[in-house]
Amino acid sequence: MLTSLKEKIFCAGANIRMLAAASHPWKVNFCKFTNETRNGMEDASANSGQAYLAALNGTASGGGYELALACEHIMLIDDRSSTVALPELPLLGVLPGTGGLTRVVDKRHVRRDLADYFATKSEGVGGQRAAAWKLVDEAVPRPGWDQAVAERAAELASRSGRPAGARGIALTPLAKRRDDDRIGYPHVSAALDRAAGTATITITGPEQEAPPDAVAIHEAGASFWTLAMTRELDDLILDLRSNELEIGTWVIKTAGEAERVLAWDQLLLDQSGDWLANEIVHYLKRTLKRLDVTSRSLIALIEPGSCFAGSLLELALAADRSYMLSGVFEETGAAAARAAVTVGAMNLGPLPMGNGLTRLQTRFLGDDAAQAAAADRAGRPLEAEAAERLGLVTFAPDDIDWDEEVRIAVEERSSFSPDALTGLEANYRFAGPETIETKIFGRLSAWQNWIFNRPNASGPDGALRRFGTGQRAHFDRKRV
Amino acid sequence: MLTSLKEKIFCAGANIRMLAAASHPWKVNFCKFTNETRNGMEDASANSGQAYLAALNGTASGGGYELALACEHIMLIDDRSSTVALPELPLLGVLPGTGGLTRVVDKRHVRRDLADYFATKSEGVGGQRAAAWKLVDEAVPRPGWDQAVAERAAELASRSGRPAGARGIALTPLAKRRDDDRIGYPHVSAALDRAAGTATITITGPEQEAPPDAVAIHEAGASFWTLAMTRELDDLILDLRSNELEIGTWVIKTAGEAERVLAWDQLLLDQSGDWLANEIVHYLKRTLKRLDVTSRSLIALIEPGSCFAGSLLELALAADRSYMLSGVFEETGAAAARAAVTVGAMNLGPLPMGNGLTRLQTRFLGDDAAQAAAADRAGRPLEAEAAERLGLVTFAPDDIDWDEEVRIAVEERSSFSPDALTGLEANYRFAGPETIETKIFGRLSAWQNWIFNRPNASGPDGALRRFGTGQRAHFDRKRV
Repeated sequence: MLTSLKEKIFCAGANIRMLAAASHPWKVNFCKFTNETRNGMEDASANSGQAYLAALNGTASGGGYELALACEHIMLIDDRSSTVALPELPLLGVLPGTGGLTRVVDKRHVRRDLADYFATKSEGVGGQRAAAWKLVDEAVPRPGWDQAVAERAAELASRSGRPAGARGIALTPLAKRRDDDRIGYPHVSAALDRAAGTATITITGPEQEAPPDAVAIHEAGASFWTLAMTRELDDLILDLRSNELEIGTWVIKTAGEAERVLAWDQLLLDQSGDWLANEIVHYLKRTLKRLDVTSRSLIALIEPGSCFAGSLLELALAADRSYMLSGVFEETGAAAARAAVTVGAMNLGPLPMGNGLTRLQTRFLGDDAAQAAAADRAGRPLEAEAAERLGLVTFAPDDIDWDEEVRIAVEERSSFSPDALTGLEANYRFAGPETIETKIFGRLSAWQNWIFNRPNASGPDGALRRFGTGQRAHFDRKRV
Repeated sequence: MLTSLKEKIFCAGANIRMLAAASHPWKVNFCKFTNETRNGMEDASANSGQAYLAALNGTASGGGYELALACEHIMLIDDRSSTVALPELPLLGVLPGTGGLTRVVDKRHVRRDLADYFATKSEGVGGQRAAAWKLVDEAVPRPGWDQAVAERAAELASRSGRPAGARGIALTPLAKRRDDDRIGYPHVSAALDRAAGTATITITGPEQEAPPDAVAIHEAGASFWTLAMTRELDDLILDLRSNELEIGTWVIKTAGEAERVLAWDQLLLDQSGDWLANEIVHYLKRTLKRLDVTSRSLIALIEPGSCFAGSLLELALAADRSYMLSGVFEETGAAAARAAVTVGAMNLGPLPMGNGLTRLQTRFLGDDAAQAAAADRAGRPLEAEAAERLGLVTFAPDDIDWDEEVRIAVEERSSFSPDALTGLEANYRFAGPETIETKIFGRLSAWQNWIFNRPNASGPDGALRRFGTGQRAHFDRKRV
C-alpha cells in the first residue's frame, strides 16, 4: 500500500484521491508504516496541489478513520448507522497509535473533552453530532450522497494548481539485488554484518554532469539521478527496517564528486516551478524524514572520495554522529585529496525536518551565529579542521586514530540497550519546536510502544490477547 | 525533598540556592517527583526573582547532573577528575528520564551529536570540554573556586528584583486527617471508594469576604484561603498519587459561593506587585499544572451549590470531562438555585498550562471565536444550557439522566486499561504548542516508562536488574 500511494504522487493531472470506506467496518490496522503513509498524504497535499477527500459511506473505525483523518475533507453518510470511531482504547486496551489522537485534537481541533468521550465509545459517533464535534466536515443524507461527493471532489480539483495537461513519468522497477549480506542498487548499496549488528550504506553521487533544464529531467524520468537515488534509498530504509531488526547501527558513506551533487541540486531548485522537479525535491525531503524517524543509530563516515555536499550532506546532518578524516590515510600518500563537506542550497531550506527546521537549524538550535557561520560557507569545500570548527561534524580524528575511534563508536553502540538508544536518539533528533509530525512520531509513538508492551495489553490476560475470545481482559489497575 | 524546596519558595529575601555536589558521585535518582521539583525550580526562577546556581565541586552524575540542569548557571570545578555525566544509558539501559535529555539539547543547546556522545560515556565529560560543549557554563580551577562561586552568587543575587527587607510567612503544618477511606483538610476533602476505584474530591470556597489589601494577605499568611486551599490540594494530589495507585478516577466537586472565589482571585491579581501575592498565584499555577500531569482520569461534577468560578473553574477545565446539572434535582424543588460556572480573570492568563496556553485557550484550540465568546462572558454566572452552548462543559444532563450518565462515565472509566487511559489523557491534555515542559512530561516520560518496562531493562537479565551484580545485561537486540 505504501508503494502504491507513493507511486501515485508522481501521476500529474489526477488531482483527487477518493477513499471510500467499505460498507462494513474497516479493520484496525496497526502496521507501522501506515503512519508515515498518512504523513506523506498530508505532506503531498501541502506541497503538490493534491487533495485527499474521504467519502465515508459506511462506518470508518480505527485504521479506517485514521486514514480519513489524514485527508483534507471528510464526508460521512448520515444514515443513522454509519459512524467514525477510534475503538482501540475500549476494545483493545491500547491507543489509536498512528496519529489518530493528535490529528483529532491538533489537526481537526475537536474539543478535548469531546475527543475523550469519542475515544471511549467503541461504537463511535455519527450523523450531525460527528459534524458538530468536527470529527467529520459534513454528514450527508443518503439521497444526495453521490452528488455531494462528486461536487466536493470537483471543488477540490478546481483548487489545484497542478498542470492539467502534464504527462506523468513511468516509475520503472528498481534494479535491486539482494544477497544475504549485501543489498545493491545502481546508486545505493548496503553491506550487512549481522555479527556486528551493522549495515554500511554507501550512496554514490551522479556519474554525469547535471542536465541543462526541466525538459531533460522529464526525459530522464525515473533514471534522473536524484529521483533514482532517492527511490533506492527509500527502498533500502524500508527493507532494513522491516527485515533486519537486529542490525541496529547504520554506517553511512558517500562516494563521488561533490560539485556534481551541488549542480544536480541546483538544477532541481532552479526548476522548482516544474511539477516533476517539485515532486522530486519533496520526495527527497520525505525520504530524509523517514531516516530521521528510523529507530537505528546513524553514524556518518566522511572519508576522502566522499561527496557529502548539499542533498547528500543531509545524510551526515541526519546522523547521530559523524566522523571525518583529518588529513589523509597513510597508504594513499600525503598528496591524495582530502575529505571535504560542502554546505549547499539544499541544506538551507528545501529539505526541512518534521519539526519545521532544517537539519542545520536543528543542529545549531539556539546558536544563530554558528548557524550563520555554516551557511556563510555555502559552496566552499570544507576540510576536516574547518568542518569541525564550524560544528558540522562531531569528531575529526587523523589517520592514526581513525580506525580505533570509529571501531569503538560502532562496537560500543551494539553493546547498549537498543530500547534506550531508540529513546535517546528520538529525543535528540527533534530538538526545538514541535509540530503535529513530531508529536505523532515522538510522543504518540512512544506512548503506543509503551502501552503495547505492558502486560495489560500484551500479557497473557491482556486486552490485545483477549480481544475476540469473548473473555474480558484482566487489568492491573495501578496507574503509573 | 519536594516539600522542603516548595517551602523555600515562600522565604522572601533569600535569593540564591546553592547546590553543591558532594565530592563523591551523586547517586542516580529515579524518583518521579524530582522531575516536577526541577520544573518548579525553573518556574520559580522565571517568576519569583530567584536564581539557582549549581556549584559542582565534584562529579555530578545522573540525578545530580539533572538537578544542576534545572539551575540557571552551572559551575564545575576543573580538577582533571570532576565531570558531569548522564550514565543511565550505558550503565542501566534506560534514559535519564527526568528531563535530562530535553534540558541538554532544548534548554542548554548542547549540539545533538555531542549530546549523543555525552550520554553514552558513563564517566562523563569534565573540564574545559564540558564548558565548550555547553554542558556547564564554566569550568573553574580549584585555586579560585570558592571565590568564583561567591562572586557568581553575588552577581545572581544582585539581579533579583525581590525586596531585600521583606519578612517571610510561617507555613504552619497542614491540619490533615487521614482515615482509611477519607482524607480531610479544612478546605479540601476526598472520599475514597477503593472498590469503585474512585476518589471524590471536594474543594470548598472561601468562608469570608475577601480581605481588603496586601497587608491583610500577609497577616493571614498560611491561613489565607487561596494559599491554604492550594497547599491542601497539592498535598492531596501527592498523597493520592503516591499512595492510591489503584484509584484511577478522581471526581472533582466544589462547594461555596462563586462570587467570593472571584473576589479573592481579584485581590491577588490587584496585588500582583506584592511578593507574597505573586508567589501564591504562581504556586496555584504550579499546583494546577501538577493536576494536568497526573495520570488519573479527572471528571468534574458541577452541581447546585458548587463554586466553579475563576481559580476553581480551572479544576473543571483541567478535567478530562465535565458534567453539569441542567435545572435542579427533583428533591430540592424547582425554586432551588441552579448550578452555574463563571469565567473570571484567573481563567484568562495568570494560570497557564505547561504548553504556555491557558486552559481555555487549550480547550478552544483553533477556534478563536469560541474562546472569545467564553472570555466575553467573564464575571457572569452561566447556567448549564449556556455553559454547554459555549463549550465550557462536556455534557449537561437534567435530573432524570444525571445519575445514570455520571454513573456510566465513572464506572466505564474503571473498566478500561489504565495504561491506555494514561496515554490518552496525556495526549489530549496538551494539545497545541509544545514547550520544554510538555516535552519532558509528555514525550520523555513516555519513553522512559516504556523503556523501564521492556525486558531489556527490567526483565530477569535486564540492565536494571543486572546493574551492580558484575554480570552484563543480556539484550534482545531487536529495534522497535
